[in-house]
Amino acid sequence: MSSLINTQVIYKQVPTGLPNPDQDFEIKKTTITLKDVVLKANEILVKTLFASVDPYMRVRMRDPSVPSYLPAFIPGQPMNGAIVAEVLRSTDSKFIQGDIVVAFGNWEEYNVLSTADAGFFGVEKIPDARSGKYPLSNLLGVLGVTGLTAYVGLHKICEPLTPGQTLYVSAAAGAVGQVVGQYGKSLGLRVVGSAGDDKKVDYLLKELKFDAAFNYKKHSSDLVGILKETCPNGIDIYFENVGGKMLDAVLVVCNSNARIAACGMISQYNRPDGHEGIFNIRTIIGKKIRIEGFHANDGPPTYPATAFQTFRKLLEEGRLLAKDHVTEGIENLPQAFVYMLNGKNFGKAVVKIADL
Amino acid sequence: MSSLINTQVIYKQVPTGLPNPDQDFEIKKTTITLKDVVLKANEILVKTLFASVDPYMRVRMRDPSVPSYLPAFIPGQPMNGAIVAEVLRSTDSKFIQGDIVVAFGNWEEYNVLSTADAGFFGVEKIPDARSGKYPLSNLLGVLGVTGLTAYVGLHKICEPLTPGQTLYVSAAAGAVGQVVGQYGKSLGLRVVGSAGDDKKVDYLLKELKFDAAFNYKKHSSDLVGILKETCPNGIDIYFENVGGKMLDAVLVVCNSNARIAACGMISQYNRPDGHEGIFNIRTIIGKKIRIEGFHANDGPPTYPATAFQTFRKLLEEGRLLAKDHVTEGIENLPQAFVYMLNGKNFGKAVVKIADL
Repeated sequence: MSSLINTQVIYKQVPTGLPNPDQDFEIKKTTITLKDVVLKANEILVKTLFASVDPYMRVRMRDPSVPSYLPAFIPGQPMNGAIVAEVLRSTDSKFIQGDIVVAFGNWEEYNVLSTADAGFFGVEKIPDARSGKYPLSNLLGVLGVTGLTAYVGLHKICEPLTPGQTLYVSAAAGAVGQVVGQYGKSLGLRVVGSAGDDKKVDYLLKELKFDAAFNYKKHSSDLVGILKETCPNGIDIYFENVGGKMLDAVLVVCNSNARIAACGMISQYNRPDGHEGIFNIRTIIGKKIRIEGFHANDGPPTYPATAFQTFRKLLEEGRLLAKDHVTEGIENLPQAFVYMLNGKNFGKAVVKIADL
Repeated sequence: MSSLINTQVIYKQVPTGLPNPDQDFEIKKTTITLKDVVLKANEILVKTLFASVDPYMRVRMRDPSVPSYLPAFIPGQPMNGAIVAEVLRSTDSKFIQGDIVVAFGNWEEYNVLSTADAGFFGVEKIPDARSGKYPLSNLLGVLGVTGLTAYVGLHKICEPLTPGQTLYVSAAAGAVGQVVGQYGKSLGLRVVGSAGDDKKVDYLLKELKFDAAFNYKKHSSDLVGILKETCPNGIDIYFENVGGKMLDAVLVVCNSNARIAACGMISQYNRPDGHEGIFNIRTIIGKKIRIEGFHANDGPPTYPATAFQTFRKLLEEGRLLAKDHVTEGIENLPQAFVYMLNGKNFGKAVVKIADL
């Protein structure tokens, strides 16, 4: 077999503020001859089909000397994250050519992955991926880490999920937000969402059937006011994706015994001048509010299976719309990532690298 | 019986910043003839022996139009709070002359209390109060709401209380703090405390046997540094009594899965210019930190009995020192209250109104 081009997306440098697709990344093209790729024991050579772009990646784009729960990306190395890929060759009998897997891989067209790591960051075979029951991109969204994040946040932090209580979710048209809201509706909660443009608000109300929704940019001068208007009974559960001034306003509108699942604070990630202060934290005492951070792999071991079973059922019943925002072409990964950070995505942001 | 003087402490006006004992309160003396006091059904006439002064009272000294979890004090009315009192006369067969009770009563020498309200804010008879096993002031401290607050915060919010983990408590020589720290020691935790003067720090180390302690005023320019020094393994449990910059620093030093019981934020109560911002809130996501507010009456119904049984046992074994800061004389209630807000108390601040 002749040589092919293997395009990679290289992380060039630590960005200041919002990353710049041209300056902070580099598209690198090398040649690869697939038959010459040598696999060690328990490895697979895969063709990357989809790559996920996620807010947490911004946390990894920092000076490597600054500690965090996630390792920093190394300048000069390829970016990496969750991918959907097709197995081309395998030295592990559990995987054969043609298998579709979800894994953690580089932003490049061909990856060699170790199958030795099991668990959350290991390689997972998806037996029904070719069934056509759902788009493959869903494996990075509602049927992947995104969906699990929604499930863990609601069940681990926010129980009891009492029907009739008010769930407010920010970045509600985003990857996790849309699952949180729709799943909340299926549980009988009153669901309110916010997003950064009117088209998204429309989508939340008309397609995802949220009970109320608003464009936070139009209400930035009085977030407390719009929250009180859209949550007339107060907020019982807040699924926190944005942080900053929104969190501060939510604390004012929370009811007694409110639960706040802190999933992300995307409004803060690109602030080169430090974070916004939270001035209403004291309300957590009077109102006995719980705020708790979590990760998608935090729940009991039964959560992933239960979550995906639940979401598949809701998908089949048409009670869950899983919108993915698909950008085409590996060269567009940096731009898709930055668009997502800027809230320009509609649903889960993924990049299609190749056809199956 | 001839008439007596009944001294009352009247709440005069909403303070700006730290209350002023002379301007914001008024000592009012009226006469009372005890035999002429008419009791309705289920009432008791009591002589007040001790009155509690507590940080939460500052929260009640606000414009009554501002909502909060606690009703605002009404200017012109007496202050009120937890008291220890002796029953002089009763129309409820469950109480007889000479009984000692803990109740919610006015800051005045003689109170008429309804015994109809049961539960947390009701009148509670203390059968062994005259046994001499403990000073009566303890009924407002370790054997009262103060002790229960320590117990509920640790058990409801901070479990698991794993021996060897680091518990940090602020305002550690204060009413709740000293119980939290000593009880934490008895559970095998490594206990670190802070206070606002060297004598208190000395007391924490030498008498209460804390593993480490520091004067936060001497380290105000680098709270993170002193926390890292005194908690070399990081903070697993933070019992939050002060808020503001201390909370912000603690968030930096917390370990993964840290639990923060938010009991009070006394550093913020007297700031007329608004609260300090919390800038490190984002760390709760990466480190999966839980922050939760609570009240003393929040736990399961079994908590009070279990808590007081536990603390009595520790007191008897000499493993718990229950220091009360006793000021004498009802006229000194406002000053004792303000001293306590200013951190001048050493242990639980109470005012002795009369001898038994």
